[in-house]
Amino acid sequence: MTPFFDVRMKGFRDRKTVVEVVELLQVRSRPVESEFIRPAAGRVLVEFIESPVNVPAFARAAMDGYAVRGEDTFGADPNNPVPLAVIGSALPGVAFDGTVGAGQAVRIMTGAPLPAGADAVLPVELTVSFGAGSVSDGSVSATEAVPPGRHVGRIGEDVREGQEVLPDHRVLRPQDIGMLSAIGVDEVEVVGIPKVAILTTGNELLPPFSTPVGYHITDANTPMLEALVTRDGGQILPSERVEDQYEAVRDAIKNCDADVILISGGSSVGAEDHAPRAVAELGELLAHGVALRPASPTGFGVVDGKFVFLLPGNPVSCLCAYDLFAGPFIRNLGGRNWDMPYRTVELPAKSKIVSAVGRVDYVRVKVAKRLVEPLAVSGASILSTAVFADGFVLIDQDSEGVPPGGMVTVYLYD
Amino acid sequence: MTPFFDVRMKGFRDRKTVVEVVELLQVRSRPVESEFIRPAAGRVLVEFIESPVNVPAFARAAMDGYAVRGEDTFGADPNNPVPLAVIGSALPGVAFDGTVGAGQAVRIMTGAPLPAGADAVLPVELTVSFGAGSVSDGSVSATEAVPPGRHVGRIGEDVREGQEVLPDHRVLRPQDIGMLSAIGVDEVEVVGIPKVAILTTGNELLPPFSTPVGYHITDANTPMLEALVTRDGGQILPSERVEDQYEAVRDAIKNCDADVILISGGSSVGAEDHAPRAVAELGELLAHGVALRPASPTGFGVVDGKFVFLLPGNPVSCLCAYDLFAGPFIRNLGGRNWDMPYRTVELPAKSKIVSAVGRVDYVRVKVAKRLVEPLAVSGASILSTAVFADGFVLIDQDSEGVPPGGMVTVYLYD
Repeated sequence: MTPFFDVRMKGFRDRKTVVEVVELLQVRSRPVESEFIRPAAGRVLVEFIESPVNVPAFARAAMDGYAVRGEDTFGADPNNPVPLAVIGSALPGVAFDGTVGAGQAVRIMTGAPLPAGADAVLPVELTVSFGAGSVSDGSVSATEAVPPGRHVGRIGEDVREGQEVLPDHRVLRPQDIGMLSAIGVDEVEVVGIPKVAILTTGNELLPPFSTPVGYHITDANTPMLEALVTRDGGQILPSERVEDQYEAVRDAIKNCDADVILISGGSSVGAEDHAPRAVAELGELLAHGVALRPASPTGFGVVDGKFVFLLPGNPVSCLCAYDLFAGPFIRNLGGRNWDMPYRTVELPAKSKIVSAVGRVDYVRVKVAKRLVEPLAVSGASILSTAVFADGFVLIDQDSEGVPPGGMVTVYLYD
Repeated sequence: MTPFFDVRMKGFRDRKTVVEVVELLQVRSRPVESEFIRPAAGRVLVEFIESPVNVPAFARAAMDGYAVRGEDTFGADPNNPVPLAVIGSALPGVAFDGTVGAGQAVRIMTGAPLPAGADAVLPVELTVSFGAGSVSDGSVSATEAVPPGRHVGRIGEDVREGQEVLPDHRVLRPQDIGMLSAIGVDEVEVVGIPKVAILTTGNELLPPFSTPVGYHITDANTPMLEALVTRDGGQILPSERVEDQYEAVRDAIKNCDADVILISGGSSVGAEDHAPRAVAELGELLAHGVALRPASPTGFGVVDGKFVFLLPGNPVSCLCAYDLFAGPFIRNLGGRNWDMPYRTVELPAKSKIVSAVGRVDYVRVKVAKRLVEPLAVSGASILSTAVFADGFVLIDQDSEGVPPGGMVTVYLYD
């Protein structure tokens, strides 16, 4: 790697492009160690799953009604009901012991095993009862024909033994959990949950949610980053405030037991920005300075196998750097894809979106009447823009901006 | 209300349309009782939030560099650097005590209070140092002009005291949490979390994730519903298996302390389907039987202020009824909007999607090469279709289906 260049009070010598940083991160990213758990939605399978059983394991009724020989109902219609002798009943989990013969029917509930002899289920809606009018043994008449096989769930109809039911790398959905339950798979190997530590520097910071006093401001980044990491499937380790002092920052990085360390603040080119030097001393500082507005002071490095992100202290820059780099990386460590977890829409710009060639612009926008309008292209550092915005647009570094009417992709915050 | 009509072994007398059931649910839906909590992402604000403070509360540097009088830098360029005398420094949380006069500069870090006299920040990138070449007190030269106000965060620039920062009904995002922290709002009133009980009936059912044996099948619905309810912001109460016996079902409903009761199975027209009668006896059965495939035996009622959903025992019907009715209702009780939490895409059908006039069809589909293909339009009851599908399409009850090339809205499961 290139020798460490101390940018403090000198500015970045050269900035990496957003694409370069993403490529660098993708090379380093690999899922964290797997674990075996009871299936749970949102977790990511390591291996594909084959069913150990047939579902259903027996032929069963798919409707409430009567198990019959289909051919016995041929010719039935409401004006010409075909009578059948009801010889018993089959319930879910409780089979009928005998055999259904010609002209016979067994009352059957959805899910009950189909009795021997029967090959179809005549739904209750296609019957009339005479005599007592009750549903007890007696007779019932078909008002419509059901061909053999109708309303019968065949063995293995849903899933066959040995069939792949879920692919590897699947992010488990609620219905997947139902499926794994149905086939009796009570333990699956899933990608582990990345452990993420947040180290916050800044002597001017007051603890989260406290009232700002004097020249001190309240830490916004720690609770914001906790929410972002949780959303992206990471586990937050107890957050730590670190003194703006070189040894303190260095030791906090060194002693932290996490897969990912997010350092909020102290990442820029000011005299108090110790984190880049600490990462370079302890391990490798792979990027520092990105052609990105806001969030140019973002950095990334590796220390003892821990991935360290240097995030700007400014909250909206911090959000931007997290969205573009740390978030996808954490999702990826957890087995998820690199994409940002935002819905996107393609819409025209209402007014010009200004950008500069040579950097990516992360522009917060409002969407109204299916038109996209930038918020505060000046004050790039203003958190309220990210709060008031419906989403953001990324303007490519080769672009001078977007003219009115130009189509843009909006990443929706909701 | 209409007198209870016992549909057991007779079939539904008349089915409500999907739209009728949704309207009926929307009339009954109201957010559960609010609570006061530390701001947390995903929770829903009851009231709008006004900022009690200005952010920033003081003029501050938006860049690392030097606090200057902007006019002093006029005319500076790289070939004509303008020297400034560095008279001190300002750090975040630590103000410079003096006043910046003509030709003077104070070294300043991002976030530090702007000293008296200064009206702009000269970024470190726009300076050269001579002499010791260090960043200590001495002199620095501007290589570009900065107009007054440049790189200065004005008082209230981000948020003004009294300004509405978040609207009511807001589902809190990570940056909203950052904002609430920044303005020192450590407690907000949010819609409570709906408590949801899952009562599962079916004597044929084995506990979730156990190996199916004989004519018994393993309960898929309980763990699937738990995952769905969790996704939709509900709190799952300990799930309960209920015997297929009228008094057991009735007492379980009566004794259940929940906002919403999901009854899985026993909701149809079979002799063992006790739940509809129990709801009618204990309270009001407002709907039973919906023109919807699958999931026609879905029902809804109210018992002692508890909302009771009768969900089909068949897993894919259960998923369908949950997606269309119970899920939106639970989201709504939690203060969220009625929409299903699925991304949608508009795409053409690859092949014909079959439907029947008079009912809504919930058709699981694959999406490949931006074409939509239905899975298993027969086997409506097959859970694997919902597992293998990328999403689903709803075919309106007035439609006979969609021809090849017809545009459909796909609700994506991912």
